[in-house]
Amino acid sequence: MTTHLDVRRDHACLIVHGPDRSGIVAAVTALVARNEGNIVTLDQYSDNPEGGEFFQRVVFHRPDLQAALPAIEADLDETLGPLGLEWRITDQSIPKRMAILASTSDHCLLELLWRHRRGELPVTIPMVISNHTNTAEDVRSFGIPFFHVPSQGPDKSAAEAKIVELLKGNVDFVVLARYMQILSDSFLDEVGVPVINIHHSFLPAFIGAAPYRKAKERGVKLIGATSHYVTEDLDEGPIIEQDVARVTHAMTAGDLQARGAYVERAVLSRAVQWHAEDRVIRHGNHTIVFT
Amino acid sequence: MTTHLDVRRDHACLIVHGPDRSGIVAAVTALVARNEGNIVTLDQYSDNPEGGEFFQRVVFHRPDLQAALPAIEADLDETLGPLGLEWRITDQSIPKRMAILASTSDHCLLELLWRHRRGELPVTIPMVISNHTNTAEDVRSFGIPFFHVPSQGPDKSAAEAKIVELLKGNVDFVVLARYMQILSDSFLDEVGVPVINIHHSFLPAFIGAAPYRKAKERGVKLIGATSHYVTEDLDEGPIIEQDVARVTHAMTAGDLQARGAYVERAVLSRAVQWHAEDRVIRHGNHTIVFT
Amino acid sequence: MTTHLDVRRDHACLIVHGPDRSGIVAAVTALVARNEGNIVTLDQYSDNPEGGEFFQRVVFHRPDLQAALPAIEADLDETLGPLGLEWRITDQSIPKRMAILASTSDHCLLELLWRHRRGELPVTIPMVISNHTNTAEDVRSFGIPFFHVPSQGPDKSAAEAKIVELLKGNVDFVVLARYMQILSDSFLDEVGVPVINIHHSFLPAFIGAAPYRKAKERGVKLIGATSHYVTEDLDEGPIIEQDVARVTHAMTAGDLQARGAYVERAVLSRAVQWHAEDRVIRHGNHTIVFT
Amino acid sequence: MTTHLDVRRDHACLIVHGPDRSGIVAAVTALVARNEGNIVTLDQYSDNPEGGEFFQRVVFHRPDLQAALPAIEADLDETLGPLGLEWRITDQSIPKRMAILASTSDHCLLELLWRHRRGELPVTIPMVISNHTNTAEDVRSFGIPFFHVPSQGPDKSAAEAKIVELLKGNVDFVVLARYMQILSDSFLDEVGVPVINIHHSFLPAFIGAAPYRKAKERGVKLIGATSHYVTEDLDEGPIIEQDVARVTHAMTAGDLQARGAYVERAVLSRAVQWHAEDRVIRHGNHTIVFT
Repeated sequence: MTTHLDVRRDHACLIVHGPDRSGIVAAVTALVARNEGNIVTLDQYSDNPEGGEFFQRVVFHRPDLQAALPAIEADLDETLGPLGLEWRITDQSIPKRMAILASTSDHCLLELLWRHRRGELPVTIPMVISNHTNTAEDVRSFGIPFFHVPSQGPDKSAAEAKIVELLKGNVDFVVLARYMQILSDSFLDEVGVPVINIHHSFLPAFIGAAPYRKAKERGVKLIGATSHYVTEDLDEGPIIEQDVARVTHAMTAGDLQARGAYVERAVLSRAVQWHAEDRVIRHGNHTIVFT
Repeated sequence: MTTHLDVRRDHACLIVHGPDRSGIVAAVTALVARNEGNIVTLDQYSDNPEGGEFFQRVVFHRPDLQAALPAIEADLDETLGPLGLEWRITDQSIPKRMAILASTSDHCLLELLWRHRRGELPVTIPMVISNHTNTAEDVRSFGIPFFHVPSQGPDKSAAEAKIVELLKGNVDFVVLARYMQILSDSFLDEVGVPVINIHHSFLPAFIGAAPYRKAKERGVKLIGATSHYVTEDLDEGPIIEQDVARVTHAMTAGDLQARGAYVERAVLSRAVQWHAEDRVIRHGNHTIVFT
Repeated sequence: MTTHLDVRRDHACLIVHGPDRSGIVAAVTALVARNEGNIVTLDQYSDNPEGGEFFQRVVFHRPDLQAALPAIEADLDETLGPLGLEWRITDQSIPKRMAILASTSDHCLLELLWRHRRGELPVTIPMVISNHTNTAEDVRSFGIPFFHVPSQGPDKSAAEAKIVELLKGNVDFVVLARYMQILSDSFLDEVGVPVINIHHSFLPAFIGAAPYRKAKERGVKLIGATSHYVTEDLDEGPIIEQDVARVTHAMTAGDLQARGAYVERAVLSRAVQWHAEDRVIRHGNHTIVFT
Repeated sequence: MTTHLDVRRDHACLIVHGPDRSGIVAAVTALVARNEGNIVTLDQYSDNPEGGEFFQRVVFHRPDLQAALPAIEADLDETLGPLGLEWRITDQSIPKRMAILASTSDHCLLELLWRHRRGELPVTIPMVISNHTNTAEDVRSFGIPFFHVPSQGPDKSAAEAKIVELLKGNVDFVVLARYMQILSDSFLDEVGVPVINIHHSFLPAFIGAAPYRKAKERGVKLIGATSHYVTEDLDEGPIIEQDVARVTHAMTAGDLQARGAYVERAVLSRAVQWHAEDRVIRHGNHTIVFT
């Protein structure tokens, strides 16, 4: 099967970020050219052309990319450093390592595994961790390791330590696919990689628990889902993607939940794909998403 | 031009509401049949088949409806009263009288006037009232009376009294088409007819002032609009209709506002049409909308 | 797990169809009432109130439905026969038996199996038949029998006879979930049950083979999918459901196909669910869909 | 009122098009930089990185643009000519001159005039031409000249000659806003500017006359609209934008037409805006649209 990753051999993705000024685009594109790269896509955004922040994503093809990367990185340091710009460059043929944390619900989890098997997500999945066992067989049928870390009782710290131990050093980002346990403030620091969550409402509406019940009580005519980076503030992290579905007065809270599951899996899948493809840049509590 | 109202000659709309029990639908349809009506559409909803609330909307054709209405109403009283059901019946060839209150923004106002001229809104529009004059010429070009009621200074009571005087007895419902003045608690009571508002966000997100600015600050990926009945609690009334549009990181708060205007006018137009066609039933803080 | 079918115990779905005339709704609802049924939902449609066709779907709750059905059916015969109306009644607690025919693509197939496992499709699935074996393990992991019927060579009649043999008498409808073999004209007659197909375009655009390639060549800005009943005319049967997704100039025909897969599985799933819930009435080359 | 055009002072839009090769982006961005421009947005697309066609749109800010343009154009000639690239550059503060041709329907016409008045379309509108007079008063209330060119009888050539005479040299593009007369093959040549049409179906479905009637007959579940450049082949020109709306079995062909009007005006407005902003590049029978 042809996958994204085959297609991406010898493709680099360069992210540049810093204070906007005249000539940045020219400096970057000249750098790519003199390093024998051919630009495939280029997106940039400035939140204010006069004195704002500048963000750029460049994908370029460069034969023998791996051999050339050290020289390109040295050039980037020399060229962009004096302009006060931060940068990172990735070899697009190297998939990011993604862990999934799940609970009993399988809709987001299986959707990610299935899209991955179709070659649509440029990641590897070294593990799925769940505090339940009901999805173990399904996960393993995809050839993915499944770890059960139960989290009963009031003290979740042992379970969380176990999860950190599994993840640490082994993954490049973590996806909470309707993982229903609250993670401690220190979890993010200890894991040290981005964590993406799916919240089952159109944030900032219905923050917190039981959003479908709250949606029914308020009588909304659309329900939604929001995928965002996890920060220390619950449901307040930078939003990556959102979407909605139409509902009616005749639907119960349970119906909203069933309908919402399809919005959740689509929204989370898009967010994960964009993150994996380095299309998302975090900036404060916002995201720049180059789709 | 053929309008909705020509089509609706001799059509009655019957709304029934009350405690659910077996046999209501049969009782109502038998009543329509023995009064020589032919049912055109019938919708019903029960929020709980065992002991819940029952809502029904029946449109039927009855030749010489006007002459027959008193007898039909007597029959309704006699038949539905003992079942504890409330009802109202309207002759669909008699348009509701709708007043529009506006400020400087013209997008919702002109959309309603234009849809009305096309024959798509089964209403008459006896007046548009604004606290500004910029839309006067446009409104009058549609043949609609325009009244300017300025509302300067801290005391809005005189202006509001003037508005109530214009509306009272002359209209069946009022539409706030981006009317930017806060109405007092007593306004609803004094006017005595339903008031429909358009809020420029996907409620309950971004309640109150400046929702587009708040949406930009939160970094949402969709903006929305909500049309609802006005109650004493700001932005908390029963929602009639909502919709959204996709936005990106590259859009300013001003861009969101410009894009949002198209969502607002569509959402408000649908809500107004459904209300005018007796498709919306209020129940507590919810609406049942039979579309 | 609570499924649709548990909820539907003692619920009957009655479909009535025939020439429109005054009093049908009253006659039907009176019949339900005198047979001790309580109407849960009622939809009807007339394509012309004066001399057109009338279509009605009534779901009612009736304790001890199974015992009462013979009497209800006799009453229907006696009451609706003289009005020239056809009817059929089903016990909603008895799931329809659905066979799936598939080829190598798994997206529509797995979506149906997964929704079925969630309890969202009120069917049983006695078999999946494929002319390939790649999905066998996945299908069986859902506990569903898988039959491989290869169809090589120019003469497909033996393979088709094998399929008919498997289906005949064992299923209530058949779903072609991206089944890539042309079925003969006699297949429909021999199988004797409705067959639902998913076509990977927004019909009637791009009839026939390779619709994504044709869509790319024409430069459309939206792609679509269409689920329809199979008739003898290829891609010309009554449409049940359609939907679209936005695409751009930058997408290849392969990208359109990948994006389109998500539209296909959603459209087919909705069509299957509506058919299984007796929400779809065929009338000539049209469908009436009571959602 | 702040308009698009105020915002665009000293902004140039450069379109580059030709055979793809390594280094084009660097060459263009270096050119912009050495001419003291600051890139605001940059989009590019290659239909095949190895030997395909390359398309680029660059908007850059350059103080005193008008004075600098001749030097920039000379530089473009010298730099891009040897690479076999075509280019055009426009001063974004100079609005394109747009004529609108209309018939009796007003929905597309008024939408364009109203968006123009809001400052959302960067054009001037020197004239509206119609073969009917019903919209004359509305058009003139926007301060736009209205010309009535009747087209009765079998020979339309005199009317068409009159239209060409009005347009020739006076406009940069022409919009057919539901103009119901067939234009001759020579019209495009004689007018010599792009002509944009709105077709009231989701092309290529329902080419030609009466698409809503055809849509009703086929029983589709979505209707659409398509805006495209006019070529000599009816309804076959390059598509700029499309969209759809959901419909049901209960809607008549007239209902589809009324619902469709809202899709048409939205689709045409987006197409016109993108054309006016130089976001659309024609390439054979396709468009590249940089939104």
